[in-house]
Amino acid sequence: MTIETPILYESKGSPNARRVRFFIAEKDITIPMKAVDLGAKEQFSDAYKAINPRSQVPALTLADGSTITEVLAIWRYLEEAYPQTPLLGTSAKTKALVTLWERRAELDGFAPVMEGVRNGIAGLKGRALSGPHAYEQIPELVERSKQRVANFYADFNERLAAVPFVAGEEFSAADITTLVTVDFATNALKMPLPAEHTAFQQWYDKTSIRPGASA
Amino acid sequence: MTIETPILYESKGSPNARRVRFFIAEKDITIPMKAVDLGAKEQFSDAYKAINPRSQVPALTLADGSTITEVLAIWRYLEEAYPQTPLLGTSAKTKALVTLWERRAELDGFAPVMEGVRNGIAGLKGRALSGPHAYEQIPELVERSKQRVANFYADFNERLAAVPFVAGEEFSAADITTLVTVDFATNALKMPLPAEHTAFQQWYDKTSIRPGASA
Repeated sequence: MTIETPILYESKGSPNARRVRFFIAEKDITIPMKAVDLGAKEQFSDAYKAINPRSQVPALTLADGSTITEVLAIWRYLEEAYPQTPLLGTSAKTKALVTLWERRAELDGFAPVMEGVRNGIAGLKGRALSGPHAYEQIPELVERSKQRVANFYADFNERLAAVPFVAGEEFSAADITTLVTVDFATNALKMPLPAEHTAFQQWYDKTSIRPGASA
Repeated sequence: MTIETPILYESKGSPNARRVRFFIAEKDITIPMKAVDLGAKEQFSDAYKAINPRSQVPALTLADGSTITEVLAIWRYLEEAYPQTPLLGTSAKTKALVTLWERRAELDGFAPVMEGVRNGIAGLKGRALSGPHAYEQIPELVERSKQRVANFYADFNERLAAVPFVAGEEFSAADITTLVTVDFATNALKMPLPAEHTAFQQWYDKTSIRPGASA
């Protein structure tokens, strides 16, 4: 049997998988998806490890049987293979700006939320970092992560007071990571966007009602 | 006066700046460079903050007066503006694989070395994370960072026993980050590549003699 299209392995409970579903919905393309049951620890099963030895979602399997992991790599594949509705920029400069601002959202926002969660939850003892290796939690990181998220909110409020979208004039992958980060911080760290950040809130209000946001 | 080309602000002491110089040398393009004296804290000067308010190097100023920061964003700009000798992949799949493996090198190798350095050095007290905000050091991170670097060495030895270059068949930006990480770990954490990782060592021997490695 020939597999005609890529397949996305994902989970509704994974904010990283949401970043990819959001991207696919915004591009308005159809990619078959298979749910991985993280609650039942299906990501550690031999069947899933044969797809992704690191036991992480999302993962994209290609027609040749190989697997692409990591959100940014899956996005890059999809952007190249399905160029319609570009979300990673269109000129040398806007491609660089999307890379830059998506990275700011990830390193200053998304990653601190993840760090705060993984170093604080009892069920993740010995699993402070995702991936194949065991690392003990460092409780001090929880508080530092929360400071970082608060600074991310303030910095991005300043940014979004100056430009309509995170990377500038157009909606892009940088907006996807930013929206997923706000919802992740709200749900997992009980850190919703502070009301005083009005520019960020206005951006959130218009972005959270995009169809891709509920994909 | 019209500025005809981008200008790279960099420092010989910055491993992130080295990633960009290496990339420029491999592409065999000419980009004017200006040194920022980190020892004299020039990155915190008003003049440099006007270029990059985050006080980080490298930064690339464009002909229109705007600035691109972050290694990955500068690489993306240069790859699009100067397509010769591509270093970020050539097909949808190889572009994704370079993104994936460069990210593994950065998140599993480069970032832990940086974290170990910034959380351990007396001169960086209150500056545990680069950027505009002050964060206290967490000494426990130094030991965890060293564990992570040791795991990175073992994982990449396995990878490089299977393929000639980090992202597969061709030299790419993933090799640049990997080489810079090994040298950074050697110099800053006193963690050279362990002798038993023979595949990684063979890769290092051939990669470290490329002209770009000494750029």
